[in-house]
Amino acid sequence: MLSANDILHLLLALGLLLGCGRALGELVRRLGQPPVLGELLAGIVLGPTVLGHLAPDVTAALFPPTGPIASAMGGISTIAIVLFLLVAGMEVDLSTMFRQGRNALGVGIASVFVPFVLGLGLALLLPGDLGRGAHAEPLTFALFVATALSISALPMIARTLMDLNLYRSDLGMLIVATAIFNDLVGWVVFALVISLMPGTETHRFPIGMTVLLTLAFAAVMLTVVRWIIHRILPWLQAHLSWPGGVLGFALTGTLFSAALTEWIGVHAIFGAFLFGVALGDSQHLRERTRSTIEQFVSFVFAPLFFAAIGLRVNFVQDCDWLLVGVVLVVSCVGKIFPSAFAARKAGMPLRQAYAVGAGLNSRGVMEIILGVLALQVGLIDGRMFVALVVMALVTSAMAGPLIQKLLRREKARRFTDFVGARSFIAELKALTREDAIRELAAVSGAEGVPLEKIAEQVIEREKVTATGIGRGIALPHARIEGLKAPQVALGISRAGLDFDSPDGEPTRLVALVLTPAEDMNSALELYRQIVGAFNDGAVREAVLKVKTYTELLAVLASLSRPAGH
Amino acid sequence: MLSANDILHLLLALGLLLGCGRALGELVRRLGQPPVLGELLAGIVLGPTVLGHLAPDVTAALFPPTGPIASAMGGISTIAIVLFLLVAGMEVDLSTMFRQGRNALGVGIASVFVPFVLGLGLALLLPGDLGRGAHAEPLTFALFVATALSISALPMIARTLMDLNLYRSDLGMLIVATAIFNDLVGWVVFALVISLMPGTETHRFPIGMTVLLTLAFAAVMLTVVRWIIHRILPWLQAHLSWPGGVLGFALTGTLFSAALTEWIGVHAIFGAFLFGVALGDSQHLRERTRSTIEQFVSFVFAPLFFAAIGLRVNFVQDCDWLLVGVVLVVSCVGKIFPSAFAARKAGMPLRQAYAVGAGLNSRGVMEIILGVLALQVGLIDGRMFVALVVMALVTSAMAGPLIQKLLRREKARRFTDFVGARSFIAELKALTREDAIRELAAVSGAEGVPLEKIAEQVIEREKVTATGIGRGIALPHARIEGLKAPQVALGISRAGLDFDSPDGEPTRLVALVLTPAEDMNSALELYRQIVGAFNDGAVREAVLKVKTYTELLAVLASLSRPAGH
Repeated sequence: MLSANDILHLLLALGLLLGCGRALGELVRRLGQPPVLGELLAGIVLGPTVLGHLAPDVTAALFPPTGPIASAMGGISTIAIVLFLLVAGMEVDLSTMFRQGRNALGVGIASVFVPFVLGLGLALLLPGDLGRGAHAEPLTFALFVATALSISALPMIARTLMDLNLYRSDLGMLIVATAIFNDLVGWVVFALVISLMPGTETHRFPIGMTVLLTLAFAAVMLTVVRWIIHRILPWLQAHLSWPGGVLGFALTGTLFSAALTEWIGVHAIFGAFLFGVALGDSQHLRERTRSTIEQFVSFVFAPLFFAAIGLRVNFVQDCDWLLVGVVLVVSCVGKIFPSAFAARKAGMPLRQAYAVGAGLNSRGVMEIILGVLALQVGLIDGRMFVALVVMALVTSAMAGPLIQKLLRREKARRFTDFVGARSFIAELKALTREDAIRELAAVSGAEGVPLEKIAEQVIEREKVTATGIGRGIALPHARIEGLKAPQVALGISRAGLDFDSPDGEPTRLVALVLTPAEDMNSALELYRQIVGAFNDGAVREAVLKVKTYTELLAVLASLSRPAGH
Repeated sequence: MLSANDILHLLLALGLLLGCGRALGELVRRLGQPPVLGELLAGIVLGPTVLGHLAPDVTAALFPPTGPIASAMGGISTIAIVLFLLVAGMEVDLSTMFRQGRNALGVGIASVFVPFVLGLGLALLLPGDLGRGAHAEPLTFALFVATALSISALPMIARTLMDLNLYRSDLGMLIVATAIFNDLVGWVVFALVISLMPGTETHRFPIGMTVLLTLAFAAVMLTVVRWIIHRILPWLQAHLSWPGGVLGFALTGTLFSAALTEWIGVHAIFGAFLFGVALGDSQHLRERTRSTIEQFVSFVFAPLFFAAIGLRVNFVQDCDWLLVGVVLVVSCVGKIFPSAFAARKAGMPLRQAYAVGAGLNSRGVMEIILGVLALQVGLIDGRMFVALVVMALVTSAMAGPLIQKLLRREKARRFTDFVGARSFIAELKALTREDAIRELAAVSGAEGVPLEKIAEQVIEREKVTATGIGRGIALPHARIEGLKAPQVALGISRAGLDFDSPDGEPTRLVALVLTPAEDMNSALELYRQIVGAFNDGAVREAVLKVKTYTELLAVLASLSRPAGH
């Protein structure tokens, strides 16, 4: 049992991990990096690397290595990682993989097999320098390194592709399908490698039996259990409390699957992952259930887990730059080129083929989880762990810019990137179309061009075609000679203005769109986005009530962005 | 640290608690009882009362009383109860309380003060027989009994009132406002009583200081912190990831508040509760964040916590019927009559005044939580705990029927209660209005009236006024002589039928509504409900695709029911 003091320390420890993890996570997200980097950093700051160095007493009291608090934290961490893998599994879309068929299979095999062989050879040739754990057999260690180099991080890849507006393209689907294949193979192999480690207890089954049971478990989960879940979900949704009934079912199933794989002798997360695949595949699983699980896990459990990682390792002491370099180079070379080669074979143009390679190269969070588990069972030492974490972060950060460069793609920008606090007017004073345009032009922030001239140009154009598009929205626009970048100014009219809308409604929302004269594309893209953002009646209504720029952003962020990602 | 075997047992234990808890919870819900009863039952089955009696080895392995697994379970339980109190706090609506003003204050004081004095006197006069814990001072124990008798269970009361369609009535608001007052006062007093117990550590502050700090903490949370949260939420929603950013913030705040009250010397849940009040009060908190927290806590953490309660107590051995009876009678008498008296004084009619008393009498989950904590710190023994649990369940189960009887209210019925598997046709064969009505009349399940006669009567009425109401819906209807209860038959036409809709759209959804000739109200209520259920375009679209009755229920349950409750 926990004493009152234990509970106090546990609550403080969890509050610190979650609070710092989320805060740094948001910070690095704003710098364009994945939040997991910030969450890891929080652990590094709170753990032996920084705080433990400055105030060892505090770290020892909050995060003791043994005792009841350590057990409680261990239990919570276990649940956190099990649920994280449930969500990772739910993101796997088997039908996408099957639809891509032969192409994905070819690229998939190449992108798993080559790095696997490379890693295996490397680890067998230079075991001493690669950070093998004290208790690990050379072959087991080599198999782990091979697996670690050959996986890909599906969630990270999906997010990168979405940022580049490539997710639904053929290229995007091929990358995703291949990553799914890599994920499935990688986890099966990793589950088996873990089972090879000598544990504190004697093994329940001989290794051959474990392999057989693992494969049988995976097969049953992806066929029979998947089918049963698909059948049972409508019944559950009809007869249990909504939406929580399905939630309870999903988590119960996850816990039992996790327990079953743990019993077989492979890690609990493998069961959770496969249950996630089986559950997420059903079209009967509603968006609401999916998002409740995903949100709670991604923003509560995951930060706790990733921040807790930093508590275990001294990242300064255990940083071996040579090892970091070797792991990084081998993993990039071993992944990008074979994947690109296979994609080229499948008939893809050169640059796109390399983009596939760059996409699959991102290892992300999955690599870090593999590393943590290997570190826990003593398969690798702290140096190798640090090298894997750095490799995971670098390959993930590289993927986006690389694909962008290879495909000469611009990152998708939202129109809110162009509207600043200064170019938003919550209450337009103007009572006529012309005055509204002048008022907005005055705050548009266009540089190097006289503002009155801009206003007159927009008004001229407005006379030719009125820009009221109905639903209370108007989009006056002009292409301006000498303007450097697109500018958007947004104003709200409480009185309502006459922009000659086709539906006769008074215009309450005026977005002045200014684009450089030579830029033919931005205006259309901005139009599309603005209309899209205010498509929803609830958004329009909420926007009309905002009083400050911050509130405007809050409404747009909370109502218009799709769930997940 | 947890060994692989510990993890296996922990996962199994959690899976069993959650799975059985949810399954039994849903079962008793279908029997019209609160789910918490089923969740408690699950623990009783898995704990010493049943499974521990039949297979002590299994219980000992899965739910050991000490060691790493016990610590891990303790940690998870602590988080569960802290988050449960966060949600309970979020349901407190301070403005409702202030709006009811003097009335609520009068009833509130009467409904807290009288049972408090009664409990105090009783416990001081007969301490030996009331299940005082071994280490508890008589006065501390008496204060606890007094508090236990005087609280009310806000969430339970809100649900009962909603079931009776009374939530938004004056009566409902008065009950809710009073319950909020009871809740706040009850928790402050309970927090102080807990701090009086001798702990394993020496107290951090003298008791006077603890009282002062507790009151100061409550005051700061309900004013300054509430104001800050209200101010900061729009900024968080605008600048952090949506919707998870606010989630992380809410949980971090909860953990720190809980830690702070634990540090003051009152229980962690008090801080979590007050943070919930401060957070839930802000109108900037979006429904989506609210429901994500609520769903995950109510259907994952709460069942775990309540099922785990049954593991601690042998409900058969510790059942002292005399004590159960005394606690039950005193709590009912002490709550119902003073509340009714005060409500009467405030100018309420007699029956309504008693309804207020019956509503406030339900103790629900809060009582059980109070009991668990008191049992943990040794304030009460198992017998008193069982008596409190029984009292909580009985008073909660009584409230609904009692109010119903006093106000002669019928429980609100949904139109789906009238549509059965037999009276739903997923693909109408009919190509005309008349045939569709005949087809539906044939399955309508009306008893004692010839079906053809019903069809002809509906068709007659249809000739006078067409019942297509637009959006692809038609509601043919007739009041039938000799019919005993309202009947609804629902049919979907893939081809589309002509019901002379005002918008000219073909009708795809036909709901035949039959009501008894003498019943003037049901038809209107059913109309209102059916139109309401299909008001949402997404629901209409989803319904047109369903193939079975179960799928229909799933769509209606998942899309049309409001969040929460």
